[in-house]
Amino acid sequence: MKVGIINVTGYAGSELARLLWHHPEVELVSVTGRSAAGKRLPEVMPHLWEIDLEVTEAIHVPVDLVFSALPSGASAEALTPFVESGTKAIDIAADFRLHDAAGFKKAYKIDHPSPHLLEKAVYGLPEIHREAIKTTNLVANPGCFPEASILAMAPAVREGIIGDDVIVNALTGISGAGRGGLATNIMDHYAEANENAMAYGLGGHGHQPEIAQELAELREAPTARVTFVPHRIPMTRGILATCYAPLVDSGTTKQTVRDLYKEFYKDHPFVRVTDAPPQSKQTTGSNLCLVYPTVDEQAGRLVVISCIDNLVKGAAGQAMQNMNLMFGIPEETGLPAMALYP
Amino acid sequence: MKVGIINVTGYAGSELARLLWHHPEVELVSVTGRSAAGKRLPEVMPHLWEIDLEVTEAIHVPVDLVFSALPSGASAEALTPFVESGTKAIDIAADFRLHDAAGFKKAYKIDHPSPHLLEKAVYGLPEIHREAIKTTNLVANPGCFPEASILAMAPAVREGIIGDDVIVNALTGISGAGRGGLATNIMDHYAEANENAMAYGLGGHGHQPEIAQELAELREAPTARVTFVPHRIPMTRGILATCYAPLVDSGTTKQTVRDLYKEFYKDHPFVRVTDAPPQSKQTTGSNLCLVYPTVDEQAGRLVVISCIDNLVKGAAGQAMQNMNLMFGIPEETGLPAMALYP
Amino acid sequence: MKVGIINVTGYAGSELARLLWHHPEVELVSVTGRSAAGKRLPEVMPHLWEIDLEVTEAIHVPVDLVFSALPSGASAEALTPFVESGTKAIDIAADFRLHDAAGFKKAYKIDHPSPHLLEKAVYGLPEIHREAIKTTNLVANPGCFPEASILAMAPAVREGIIGDDVIVNALTGISGAGRGGLATNIMDHYAEANENAMAYGLGGHGHQPEIAQELAELREAPTARVTFVPHRIPMTRGILATCYAPLVDSGTTKQTVRDLYKEFYKDHPFVRVTDAPPQSKQTTGSNLCLVYPTVDEQAGRLVVISCIDNLVKGAAGQAMQNMNLMFGIPEETGLPAMALYP
Amino acid sequence: MKVGIINVTGYAGSELARLLWHHPEVELVSVTGRSAAGKRLPEVMPHLWEIDLEVTEAIHVPVDLVFSALPSGASAEALTPFVESGTKAIDIAADFRLHDAAGFKKAYKIDHPSPHLLEKAVYGLPEIHREAIKTTNLVANPGCFPEASILAMAPAVREGIIGDDVIVNALTGISGAGRGGLATNIMDHYAEANENAMAYGLGGHGHQPEIAQELAELREAPTARVTFVPHRIPMTRGILATCYAPLVDSGTTKQTVRDLYKEFYKDHPFVRVTDAPPQSKQTTGSNLCLVYPTVDEQAGRLVVISCIDNLVKGAAGQAMQNMNLMFGIPEETGLPAMALYP
Repeated sequence: MKVGIINVTGYAGSELARLLWHHPEVELVSVTGRSAAGKRLPEVMPHLWEIDLEVTEAIHVPVDLVFSALPSGASAEALTPFVESGTKAIDIAADFRLHDAAGFKKAYKIDHPSPHLLEKAVYGLPEIHREAIKTTNLVANPGCFPEASILAMAPAVREGIIGDDVIVNALTGISGAGRGGLATNIMDHYAEANENAMAYGLGGHGHQPEIAQELAELREAPTARVTFVPHRIPMTRGILATCYAPLVDSGTTKQTVRDLYKEFYKDHPFVRVTDAPPQSKQTTGSNLCLVYPTVDEQAGRLVVISCIDNLVKGAAGQAMQNMNLMFGIPEETGLPAMALYP
Repeated sequence: MKVGIINVTGYAGSELARLLWHHPEVELVSVTGRSAAGKRLPEVMPHLWEIDLEVTEAIHVPVDLVFSALPSGASAEALTPFVESGTKAIDIAADFRLHDAAGFKKAYKIDHPSPHLLEKAVYGLPEIHREAIKTTNLVANPGCFPEASILAMAPAVREGIIGDDVIVNALTGISGAGRGGLATNIMDHYAEANENAMAYGLGGHGHQPEIAQELAELREAPTARVTFVPHRIPMTRGILATCYAPLVDSGTTKQTVRDLYKEFYKDHPFVRVTDAPPQSKQTTGSNLCLVYPTVDEQAGRLVVISCIDNLVKGAAGQAMQNMNLMFGIPEETGLPAMALYP
Repeated sequence: MKVGIINVTGYAGSELARLLWHHPEVELVSVTGRSAAGKRLPEVMPHLWEIDLEVTEAIHVPVDLVFSALPSGASAEALTPFVESGTKAIDIAADFRLHDAAGFKKAYKIDHPSPHLLEKAVYGLPEIHREAIKTTNLVANPGCFPEASILAMAPAVREGIIGDDVIVNALTGISGAGRGGLATNIMDHYAEANENAMAYGLGGHGHQPEIAQELAELREAPTARVTFVPHRIPMTRGILATCYAPLVDSGTTKQTVRDLYKEFYKDHPFVRVTDAPPQSKQTTGSNLCLVYPTVDEQAGRLVVISCIDNLVKGAAGQAMQNMNLMFGIPEETGLPAMALYP
Repeated sequence: MKVGIINVTGYAGSELARLLWHHPEVELVSVTGRSAAGKRLPEVMPHLWEIDLEVTEAIHVPVDLVFSALPSGASAEALTPFVESGTKAIDIAADFRLHDAAGFKKAYKIDHPSPHLLEKAVYGLPEIHREAIKTTNLVANPGCFPEASILAMAPAVREGIIGDDVIVNALTGISGAGRGGLATNIMDHYAEANENAMAYGLGGHGHQPEIAQELAELREAPTARVTFVPHRIPMTRGILATCYAPLVDSGTTKQTVRDLYKEFYKDHPFVRVTDAPPQSKQTTGSNLCLVYPTVDEQAGRLVVISCIDNLVKGAAGQAMQNMNLMFGIPEETGLPAMALYP
């Protein structure tokens, strides 16, 4: 099985190349980049020294599956010809995550290049949409924050134990800013990002509608009320989301919630309901999502903490998990389930 | 004016020594420590090389003011004789912050050593209790999280623009764990704390009742509903609190909230209402609290972000500010108002 | 093939468990710990959640190979009965690295518990002693600093292009201090180690005689003159060694040196001679050693920079590579050769 | 006394503004910037909120002293008219550090804009050139690496106890890369710089001739042999230099060296000879240089470790110390001598 990666030179793309290189069923045959076109991949990303492929401007050989890690807008444009010609595709960008083009435009301030494909796309969160992923040709890989947030809240929302009022307070490592942001955002400079924490996106972050869309579907309602505040903290990898929602029944116990979460995730290989508050570092390099639900009894509030490696379960690993499902390969193939620690 | 510091060898105590050393009205004449007794201060804390005092077991010369940076319980015990003999005292520990002994026991799991002094103590947050601080002999310096949280919420609570339902999601650097925690908490080890984020204190953190007490007073009600979730993140200094509360009038605008905050803090030298989301690093080494109020219009929710240097405005600087007030010295004397950046 | 790990609860031991767990030819059947005895491994090391073994006080089932990650002295004691009864053993501690007991005592300030085994032990650096490793029953896994330093200097020393005067200036991440050091070394506290660099071991570090022994052997001389200065820098994993030595022929060019190094390492799967100064992070999580030789022409000096992940090529990965050699398994089996980056 | 800063928007310039703002004898009256011209300083550097000056394109009011923190080449150009019209000037860039224009061109690959001023300039290291600084109109503020390196080696070189063969192995925090480097150097991105150590400048770093020039002068010889290898490590501020040189008399003891250093620096307020290996963090925010000389007896080698805050003693603080000397103000005025720690 032959695969290609469009835009291999960012953090998600290069992580995906690394994971695919050791996947036993896959041959990575083509990788693209813009400024790097014409070079060998290890010249651009020296840590990928084993993957001695030429970086080309476009996918230059036939592939069974194409991944895109381009920025939003450009990604849909690049994938459209593949999808239309029947090649399977996984979009790691945001272009096919929202079901309607108007929502996309509102969130990303650009017109959607291929609105006709939106209804074909499946939101690539296997814990919610596994069966649909298995049969689609176009998967929209979730955003890193939505990945952690939706997995934190899905059991509570689907079971209806909380009211329609979710707050997601999320922390991210700086690799989440992407490799391309460097030239324009001084806050990515080590000297500014180190020993520093800040909230951002308070005017509306593109991941908010994505979370709201999925939580609305889970509660079978047209909308979901979600306040989402992301924060940058001084680490490279990792997302930790702390989520809050009012309990419908303020007497709901920790144990009840815990049992419900354990039951919900019992057949999902990459989500673990933990016995203690999880640490983001317990996921580094792995495809795990750790979830810890608890209850603030005084306030009658559900509090759920979840964490992932933003580049693995939050991007490249999730994409490879989706690939496995699309091609009937055992879901866990090639995906590390234990973190690099410390 | 002569002052002493009980337990100078922790992070709050040593920061206080550094600040007091250059205060133009103060002579630091006595510093105590337990295991370090008998040594010169620079032997124990080499960065304090100019402060060539002997570390003694107890304050050994008369002082006009004594600070205590001992752990909870021990601090009240050590301060009681000073207070009873009429010496002014500032407790940097938690012992005199809560107004009733039962609440103290619940929060800290120990009996209060001097419950009769609780009613004499003034909660040392000048932005709320300035006049009372000026005339008391016993100040309870606020906890680092409450300092940031109460300053974030006070204007909204006092003006009654929010309902009684506050969430404080707070991030702290690891110096907040204290210097003594090392032997018992493997999570303070650099290799575990670095590249790691985690929530803790989910079973009930000692700072929650402190925040609730002050917010209740501000709303002139017997109680306040507060969910408080602290998180450890990989930095040395700094607290960033992101606070959420439902607006009473969901049509309240950002500008209204902003004006209200600006008005509330206009005469307070160390609180600044910022125009953009503040960064914890913009307070490093300074006595500033930066506050940024905004509104999530979709959800009808007030969101306020605040940050401080946990060892300055969250401990030693706040204590020195209180000292200035207690002794009629201009409030800003000796306190840095611009951060070390980057 | 069944293996056991003595003292799995440190950083080297747990990293080894993680690597062995996915080794296709190995079954990890027994892991020991002292304070953790009686618990399941994931209770003590949550990131190892897949390895649901009981931590026992001693290896409790027959094994084909035993690894020890105990502290020096204790390690030799624990391994001796295994070695004497014919079980193969790899010591990750320092106990069998130096060839004579007197040198051991001088370096580690304790009497060697099993001096009679010293002559059986092979220094486990495959790039120098591969054939001997294949046939021994007792491997002394190199120290992390010596691993990087010897690989940096071996080609130059063996070829005789430098004088007998080597300086190794090495930088290490804080995981190198070990997990047990916490209680006694305040410098392991995040708040002290972060944003801080310092040299240590200036009175004589235990790794200096190890480096000197191996360089002496390479130059076929009784001794080698080596100045070794380790430094702690604020990162978790990684060693970067910058080595200096006078060129015998001050006209030796960069290209000559480079060719010599490339030739020397051409058949060694885990040493790469790089085209640019290597970054420690280009080895994170991998078993690679990157080596970059160059020449300071003005000074007639060879400068070689090398780096490794101290817990992989500097400990657990090197141990597994040695295991592969001892059991006739292909050398690279189970060992990652590309780093987790960024 | 009125002063101005050309290019206030970098790390050195903004640190200088912060220090000058509280200097009791100085009024900061003009600050310049290029892209920021027209804005208020706090808009560009929010942590400098008290310094509410307009950023202008050029110094727009008369000043008694001008500092330049422009990049090399541009700095000399901007300062030349001031110097020629008799205004005192301190250049924080590299333009007046080397005594001859040919050396400048070799080091910085550009023609010197004002070679005629080179002989007027005094190298601004007060510990070596204090008297000359007092009477000059043009001070060349030392580079950050040379500052630490020359102070480490000066006593040994001047006393002639070492041979002409110095190695400087230096570590720097990432703020040393400057604020402007962001757009072009991906290695300044937090995600790349964090958890990473690397050597650079191996082809010849501009600070090498500066170190060599000053050491040559100290030994009263035309040249000095210096190998200089800088390294980037993951911290924001701080330089730690570890310097090596062969002892002329291999029997020279640690105590002899130590006494010599203590004597040499006994009247210099900002250099401290420490009793233990210094930590870079013990200088953060201060104008200190810590120096620790020792001897590797086995190798007959002097080893000296020194550290500074690269933005204070390595740039802005050193510049202000020079200003004090030039204007007959007590040398320590306005300069912090104790670090912010932890």
